[in-house]
Amino acid sequence: MTVPQTSPPQTTEPQTTEPQSALDPLNTAVLTIACADQRGIVAAVSQFLHGHGANIIHSDQHSTDPAGGTFFMRMEFHLAGLDLAREAFERTFAAEVAGPFGMDWNLSYRTVPKRMVILVSRYDHCFLDLLWRKRRGDIMVEIPLIISNHGDLRRDAEMFGIPFQVVPVTRETKAEAEAEQVRLMKEAGADFAVLARYMQILSGEFLRSFGRPVINIHHSFLPAFVGANPYRAAFNRGVKLIGATSHYVTEELDAGPIIEQDVLPVTHRETPDSLMRLGRDVERQVLARAVKAHIDDRVLVHGNKTVVF
Amino acid sequence: MTVPQTSPPQTTEPQTTEPQSALDPLNTAVLTIACADQRGIVAAVSQFLHGHGANIIHSDQHSTDPAGGTFFMRMEFHLAGLDLAREAFERTFAAEVAGPFGMDWNLSYRTVPKRMVILVSRYDHCFLDLLWRKRRGDIMVEIPLIISNHGDLRRDAEMFGIPFQVVPVTRETKAEAEAEQVRLMKEAGADFAVLARYMQILSGEFLRSFGRPVINIHHSFLPAFVGANPYRAAFNRGVKLIGATSHYVTEELDAGPIIEQDVLPVTHRETPDSLMRLGRDVERQVLARAVKAHIDDRVLVHGNKTVVF
Amino acid sequence: MTVPQTSPPQTTEPQTTEPQSALDPLNTAVLTIACADQRGIVAAVSQFLHGHGANIIHSDQHSTDPAGGTFFMRMEFHLAGLDLAREAFERTFAAEVAGPFGMDWNLSYRTVPKRMVILVSRYDHCFLDLLWRKRRGDIMVEIPLIISNHGDLRRDAEMFGIPFQVVPVTRETKAEAEAEQVRLMKEAGADFAVLARYMQILSGEFLRSFGRPVINIHHSFLPAFVGANPYRAAFNRGVKLIGATSHYVTEELDAGPIIEQDVLPVTHRETPDSLMRLGRDVERQVLARAVKAHIDDRVLVHGNKTVVF
Amino acid sequence: MTVPQTSPPQTTEPQTTEPQSALDPLNTAVLTIACADQRGIVAAVSQFLHGHGANIIHSDQHSTDPAGGTFFMRMEFHLAGLDLAREAFERTFAAEVAGPFGMDWNLSYRTVPKRMVILVSRYDHCFLDLLWRKRRGDIMVEIPLIISNHGDLRRDAEMFGIPFQVVPVTRETKAEAEAEQVRLMKEAGADFAVLARYMQILSGEFLRSFGRPVINIHHSFLPAFVGANPYRAAFNRGVKLIGATSHYVTEELDAGPIIEQDVLPVTHRETPDSLMRLGRDVERQVLARAVKAHIDDRVLVHGNKTVVF
Repeated sequence: MTVPQTSPPQTTEPQTTEPQSALDPLNTAVLTIACADQRGIVAAVSQFLHGHGANIIHSDQHSTDPAGGTFFMRMEFHLAGLDLAREAFERTFAAEVAGPFGMDWNLSYRTVPKRMVILVSRYDHCFLDLLWRKRRGDIMVEIPLIISNHGDLRRDAEMFGIPFQVVPVTRETKAEAEAEQVRLMKEAGADFAVLARYMQILSGEFLRSFGRPVINIHHSFLPAFVGANPYRAAFNRGVKLIGATSHYVTEELDAGPIIEQDVLPVTHRETPDSLMRLGRDVERQVLARAVKAHIDDRVLVHGNKTVVF
Repeated sequence: MTVPQTSPPQTTEPQTTEPQSALDPLNTAVLTIACADQRGIVAAVSQFLHGHGANIIHSDQHSTDPAGGTFFMRMEFHLAGLDLAREAFERTFAAEVAGPFGMDWNLSYRTVPKRMVILVSRYDHCFLDLLWRKRRGDIMVEIPLIISNHGDLRRDAEMFGIPFQVVPVTRETKAEAEAEQVRLMKEAGADFAVLARYMQILSGEFLRSFGRPVINIHHSFLPAFVGANPYRAAFNRGVKLIGATSHYVTEELDAGPIIEQDVLPVTHRETPDSLMRLGRDVERQVLARAVKAHIDDRVLVHGNKTVVF
Repeated sequence: MTVPQTSPPQTTEPQTTEPQSALDPLNTAVLTIACADQRGIVAAVSQFLHGHGANIIHSDQHSTDPAGGTFFMRMEFHLAGLDLAREAFERTFAAEVAGPFGMDWNLSYRTVPKRMVILVSRYDHCFLDLLWRKRRGDIMVEIPLIISNHGDLRRDAEMFGIPFQVVPVTRETKAEAEAEQVRLMKEAGADFAVLARYMQILSGEFLRSFGRPVINIHHSFLPAFVGANPYRAAFNRGVKLIGATSHYVTEELDAGPIIEQDVLPVTHRETPDSLMRLGRDVERQVLARAVKAHIDDRVLVHGNKTVVF
Repeated sequence: MTVPQTSPPQTTEPQTTEPQSALDPLNTAVLTIACADQRGIVAAVSQFLHGHGANIIHSDQHSTDPAGGTFFMRMEFHLAGLDLAREAFERTFAAEVAGPFGMDWNLSYRTVPKRMVILVSRYDHCFLDLLWRKRRGDIMVEIPLIISNHGDLRRDAEMFGIPFQVVPVTRETKAEAEAEQVRLMKEAGADFAVLARYMQILSGEFLRSFGRPVINIHHSFLPAFVGANPYRAAFNRGVKLIGATSHYVTEELDAGPIIEQDVLPVTHRETPDSLMRLGRDVERQVLARAVKAHIDDRVLVHGNKTVVF
């Protein structure tokens, strides 16, 4: 089923747009860099870009330690005016800048949206929120596939015109199920995966086999209430705030680099069920912000933490 | 089209429920009261309820002025055990308590959900959020009808199985259009209406004719940026927070009793368009909280303000 | 040294006061109740108060479980018009209401402010914030004594005219030091104690011996980062929010009933030292709100949690 | 009176410091730049700094419009290793970079703290908060003078060892009073002034005569509730959030470039007096954050708005 067509909203409000520009905001690229901190990096990179006709729009840097440590940078620039095609640009940058500085680096072209595969079980709130945001243009991403261990959400996926695959998971079949999931994700050309309240724990084998980032939403304010039943645990502890955390998945449960967190005040009036209901709003907001940051190449991993520009 | 059926989520998380209870949480009623503040109100009301077998679950009071002024109260109680049927209960309460104290009062039965008609133009975010919450059971309400001045959102309404009526509005036809809208809303048995980013301004005639509460979401932190283009106005003023406000509609634009507000921090990096995108999340959260509070009979109007229990 | 006198601010802003009233807002009392949930409590208590001429200002209730459980109530009422003196009132209430319902209850008279002893080590931020609030009239409390294990803050205490006692604590002398602290606190007529960043861990013997509530401020969002170095632990985990928690002290470290919590967003730019600096603002706000709630008799303990009206 | 001496806190917590470094975090400088957006700025500036031995610690940029507009930048760098003394550095930068690009620019040396004069009337909360932060080392600033139109806060100023001058202001004497204030501020070598709840309105003549930035704290969420009595106005409008705004003072009241804002949720239970009490915490937090941002050279003015890095 195709994605429903909706014509652009005509509103009584005048169109609010940025001033007329020959520079298409979508024809940009993002260069992200991590390397040992040393003198001259900013100069070298900006000189390189400038020298090849790139117009730098945004530039962010972070040094983890002024006396050495790791240097992180994100530069977003217009492609119009660039005097090198993509392949030559990357080759030249590698040779002239990245190599000498020993950089880990990545170049993303905004004209080639990332491909995001969603894994979901039966809770629809985070899943629907992402589909709606993509449809609305809030996040520039392709969603080639949704994988679930149940069929409940098939109809919602179809409403958004996205292929939906059920891969059941049981204790005995877990390894095969994971292998099938990875196969489907690779076949779909996934750049990253999102666990939108996917209730199965991914094995280290899955992560190694998929080899791409996996973003999870955990329904507590980590590191509090790791694992199952965080709302009941929060209720029992009598906390006055509940939260949600989005993080990259690692082999250790709920312990990977945190991307985004938020909380909501609660009172004694709440029950575990009402905490769960209230928590849904925090979960989908936090996951959406983390996914957007990842899509925008604003999240760089530093050990078990993140730098989020 | 019927509402899609989804079976209750089976999750790896054990079911979290409140302790076994013979008292059905849905078989309750809410009594709301406003009267001149005077001694003995709480005693009289609780005595009356207690005397007729009602088990009070929640009780909230507010006096606007300890030396006189208005007294507001909300009492929620179980119906099981009540020794009077609804009609007799209301008659007796009116005679024995409400009359003597000169009370304005209302009794809502949770078993009879309120009927909410939504008016929307072309922005789908608040509208979809309400439909999704109703479907999920977050809000206990009936949505018998959606009215729009455009056809864009028909398909979304149909996906949720809700009747969708287009009533076009032009300057010349506004009076007739409003009359038609009120006719449709009354025919649908609307208890209240929600303007979920409905872009037409309602006349005083509409409000009088409909005669029921109308809740609006305004995309600014009132009283700042009343009227059109609040995001552009916010951008021009260089505020560091944007907000949204939900209020009861009165004849004066964006000036009615405020029910709920919230804000979001923003920086110099944002443009009017990006503020609009960020603002959508605040708008739908604020409208949803206001609508839920209204449905739960937790909002009492006091002059041009509200008491929200 | 006496407390510095400052005359009331004369401002270009007109005096904002509540309407003229014969009912002195300070001549009130607060009755707090906990008992097994059962029918008729609200009726019985409000009838009792009404019958003896009390004018109820605020009334809050909470039932932990509609099918039984614990019922909590807080009623604030004017004393003018009460037809019983304090002793008779308490005796009659005990006999006619509290006894029959099996209530735990407390009656506080606002005209008799609580006496708060502060324990502090060397960090001055929470300590100064409380002294300043008391001086300003934000919190109605007596501060008869400050106890510290160091002399650093003596001068600040003297500026506020509050007696300051140093009781050094070492591993070997801990028991005697605690005994001395309790002796001083009892001598000062302490109703409760506040650990305003007091760095020693209180023993169960101390708590039993003092026998009154002790409020602590812990510089993390519990239950995350219990114990020492929470800011370094937060830094290492890479959380995107830091927090503070105020709770009643129990024998288990940082595990007692939580009264209030709040958080602050942080980014990758922060270091353990800067987190500590930023955290100070959260700590003093959270502690101040918890202390005020306690002083106002709005905090009732329920197991290892609190009901905060 | 001299500033009270407090020895550094000895705590049971191990000292948390950044790794040992030969680069003194205080021996840095901050270069801020504004100019017409054009290609090559980042490259030119970083090349210049790099070429003269500066080690860039932080670098932030903002372009108001990708198709032209204004470019803002802030670079913080270590002075150790710089091969030019201050005067020569500034001269060379002006000639080689600032001039060719048509830059407005400023260089601040962290080793030379800014001198801040505080104007205050009778409310002590913002005033005390700034003095305490300076004493604690939260903000690196000199406070050579406090000016007030009343004598109430003299004693507090003396406790902090800061000269306190009373300059009374009446309608008739306003011009002379302002002239005296400016004279005192210039004599004190003020780099900027802070109105810490100073209740007199400054004339345009004052601002032109002083010629340096003036930061104000307004006790509402601008642009709502401009002018006097914002808490009463907020109470009357029935808003569910109150706020505070810190901004640079311009000739038009409460209309200057906003630096920082924050809000606090409030309910129907509050009165104008209690809103005022609650608002104090927001006011002092917002003012402190704005002052710190200004001190750190992180605030750049763009028209009637600010870029806050």
